[in-house]
Amino acid sequence: MSLDLSHHLSSEARIRRPNPMKAIWRLARRKADMISLANGDPHFSLYPIRKVEFEVASVGDNVDDPVASWRLSGGSAPSQTFSSSTESSPGKLPLKSALQYSAGAGLPDAQRAVTELTNYYHSPPDHIATLTLGNGDGVAKLFRLLGDAGDHFLADEFSFSSLTNAPLSHGIKWVSVKIDEGGLIPENLKQILANWNVESQGKRPHVLYTVPCGQNPTGSTLSLERRQRIYELAQRFDFIIIEDDPYYYLQYDPLDFDDAMSDAPFQYIPSFLSMDIDGRVMRVDSFSKIMAPGMRLGWITSNPTFHEHLVHFTDSSTHHPHAFGQIFITEMLSSAGWQLSGFDRWIRSLRLEYQRRRDIFMRAFLRDVASTGLATADFPEAGMFVWIKVDIEKHPRFRRSIVGAQGDLAGVDQSGVSRCLGPKTNVAQLMEELFERCLDDGLVVMPASIFVTPSDAKVSGSNDEPIEDRLNFMRATFAGPEETMEPALRILANVLKNFFADSSSGYDSPVADNSL
Amino acid sequence: MSLDLSHHLSSEARIRRPNPMKAIWRLARRKADMISLANGDPHFSLYPIRKVEFEVASVGDNVDDPVASWRLSGGSAPSQTFSSSTESSPGKLPLKSALQYSAGAGLPDAQRAVTELTNYYHSPPDHIATLTLGNGDGVAKLFRLLGDAGDHFLADEFSFSSLTNAPLSHGIKWVSVKIDEGGLIPENLKQILANWNVESQGKRPHVLYTVPCGQNPTGSTLSLERRQRIYELAQRFDFIIIEDDPYYYLQYDPLDFDDAMSDAPFQYIPSFLSMDIDGRVMRVDSFSKIMAPGMRLGWITSNPTFHEHLVHFTDSSTHHPHAFGQIFITEMLSSAGWQLSGFDRWIRSLRLEYQRRRDIFMRAFLRDVASTGLATADFPEAGMFVWIKVDIEKHPRFRRSIVGAQGDLAGVDQSGVSRCLGPKTNVAQLMEELFERCLDDGLVVMPASIFVTPSDAKVSGSNDEPIEDRLNFMRATFAGPEETMEPALRILANVLKNFFADSSSGYDSPVADNSL
Repeated sequence: MSLDLSHHLSSEARIRRPNPMKAIWRLARRKADMISLANGDPHFSLYPIRKVEFEVASVGDNVDDPVASWRLSGGSAPSQTFSSSTESSPGKLPLKSALQYSAGAGLPDAQRAVTELTNYYHSPPDHIATLTLGNGDGVAKLFRLLGDAGDHFLADEFSFSSLTNAPLSHGIKWVSVKIDEGGLIPENLKQILANWNVESQGKRPHVLYTVPCGQNPTGSTLSLERRQRIYELAQRFDFIIIEDDPYYYLQYDPLDFDDAMSDAPFQYIPSFLSMDIDGRVMRVDSFSKIMAPGMRLGWITSNPTFHEHLVHFTDSSTHHPHAFGQIFITEMLSSAGWQLSGFDRWIRSLRLEYQRRRDIFMRAFLRDVASTGLATADFPEAGMFVWIKVDIEKHPRFRRSIVGAQGDLAGVDQSGVSRCLGPKTNVAQLMEELFERCLDDGLVVMPASIFVTPSDAKVSGSNDEPIEDRLNFMRATFAGPEETMEPALRILANVLKNFFADSSSGYDSPVADNSL
Repeated sequence: MSLDLSHHLSSEARIRRPNPMKAIWRLARRKADMISLANGDPHFSLYPIRKVEFEVASVGDNVDDPVASWRLSGGSAPSQTFSSSTESSPGKLPLKSALQYSAGAGLPDAQRAVTELTNYYHSPPDHIATLTLGNGDGVAKLFRLLGDAGDHFLADEFSFSSLTNAPLSHGIKWVSVKIDEGGLIPENLKQILANWNVESQGKRPHVLYTVPCGQNPTGSTLSLERRQRIYELAQRFDFIIIEDDPYYYLQYDPLDFDDAMSDAPFQYIPSFLSMDIDGRVMRVDSFSKIMAPGMRLGWITSNPTFHEHLVHFTDSSTHHPHAFGQIFITEMLSSAGWQLSGFDRWIRSLRLEYQRRRDIFMRAFLRDVASTGLATADFPEAGMFVWIKVDIEKHPRFRRSIVGAQGDLAGVDQSGVSRCLGPKTNVAQLMEELFERCLDDGLVVMPASIFVTPSDAKVSGSNDEPIEDRLNFMRATFAGPEETMEPALRILANVLKNFFADSSSGYDSPVADNSL
């Protein structure tokens, strides 16, 4: 039994009316042989579609490493078919049901399919699945479900800005929590919440949004210990955890090259959901990274009350998920498809494939880039990203400002409060220059600056160390074409060497201008 | 050139930030041979999908009436295939592109496909298409795009409550406009806007939401003359028209049974979009009624500025539409698929099919129901619904209240303002009783009460004639199984006869109790 956590719902969610048609549909089941003239559903005999078929990789017992076989075969690897047609056969999802209007939570068969996955990997205490249109949709819905204008939410200080920018437009304010190579730092989270002043800062943040595995952009993964610590804080300070976990299945063996292909079954790290006795975790899952982004299908696992509100919200926004994706996942997990065992074989094989890419990337990085002494990176334990730290203090034009007696920054052209809290270095300018130089030499990486969680300056827990001074990172991915990794990293190494050797060129940064 | 109408955007839309990744993607095109480590896109060689296939009805030149052939064949009618695979062939949308992350407006090929349809049927002056996840999604997005909390929007007084309830939760208030058998009444619309008192009623309504063809639930279709009149009012009072038009392709020949199969090509009525020189129409189109609801794919056609905001909104909510549906529509309209000419053959044939159903329904209605003298219905000119009017004043327990000298209603237990504006009859109670009796006899119809647009009582233009007194309607559909129409209407006829013959039974209505 989960706690009553309904005080976390937004006013929008609380006053939202359920779909009024539902009352009628219930009444329509009053007798066994009711005749209905009620629903404006196109008659299924008029759908022009007779069959939907997906030709997919075969993952039978006899296929040892299905992802490698599939990738290397050039289209000749054995395949199997997920399908749905107008003919009904036992255990199959018929097109007639799949193509009709259905429930906001998803088709019962599809909902069962993702519930089976969740139960197998997470064994959540008391939770229900609601289908979404991928994690972007899922997370955006949760922000509306939980937040009123003016509310503060917590997030990693670097985050995926496509998602964390979204709720700003409806008045949610972020408070950023510091992260290191191990992800979100529980101590900083505790500090923010314990020192929160309701009178000057408003209502205490009641939602934490975090990506626990292969965090985007830092590639960090929260250890079990940190997860437990964060969950305890959630209980103590009564906040909801949005666990956005698209990279869960892409967890890797740590560091050691040789053990990677070991025979011992890999242990996935326990999710927040798996420890959620209170019902305060809303887990967001996706097929984008393990099947294909174009699937646009995912699911949220939450306590039953939040599930119900999520369905009402879905009923009045995106309505129900598309049939084609629901057919795909239902058939994938059915007895005619991969079944759960086949799915598990695929994702474990996929894990090894991305691990192989990570290792190719990191070997090249260590050889060509780290060897310059100008940049470092940790081996990511999950996901698709390497967070490259540039040793910017070694740059000849790097400047640290002098803090005056009143805590003022001399020479930094900012005024008022933000003057005191502004950057103390020219890291931002130098990194922008470095990014431009990469582009000039034909390399695109993601600069840290675009991942800064747009934190509410007035309440930020990190004011003492402005994030502008910690922008000396770049996000790189090892998910792209293999053959480009080595040339890309050689370009990076050259750009770094030239940039750090060059003390005169580049545009003049304001800090340098002022001769700090 | 459309007008600058950006003052209609909600504050949410105005402050929304575009996806910050886009700036990087632009930079990534600086040189021809850029190498990218930027995007966290799963590598396409790791998608487990090799081919997606849809077996669909054949609509070649030689098929005279493709819908009838398809429906009557029992699965043996000629079919063709829409497909996408990893092998690239000219003119085909390859899986590699379709299954990757893509733009909020939709894949360029899919966007072109729906633009081709829109241009063919509507020739809009200066508009762009944005893909949606069906009309529910599209309309809900427009409500957020155009409305701030406290804004008033205009809608038909009876509307599809799944859609019109949705924006209530974020503070939009409805003002309902009267409708008759010809749909929304322009004179009433004009009256509401001309008499609007900004001081007492707040900002004048600046958005009209309407379903111009086969309106849900009344089945009414706006004449060209009414459309022109409404568009003039939109220009005069500066409002935006949300044209939600899922039944556009299901327009029928009027009334006359014999001319239905005539050879003259049917003329579709001009849409609001087709006359939109200002750019103030946002047209919402769907494949749900002409392909299948489970498609969950539609599109909005709007002026370029609103399109841009809609894309930003999509980028921060549902992201992009699913690949499978986009493959379907792109291949459908491609040279390997139906092409536009085949699509046109399909929907014209579908139109005749639903017209045939309408005629079966209406013949049975006239014979069994109208002949009782207790109910009437107009022949719908579009859509799927018949709006059955019950001649409730003939009921022995029908009561009209006596309005006192102060305009008070004697005996109606309501207080304050709403007392004066409350119902003057017991229509609502009698209709609820009738609905229950239908259920008891095994028939489900939709009662008018669930379609009442939840209008802001304080500003409603229809206060003089409360809608509670006009609930003597039921929505029935002719889209369901053919074989159930006649038995259903026979049940209805019997229920009506018994109900109207019976002056004593039924629960006691408050109005009747008070012996008005």
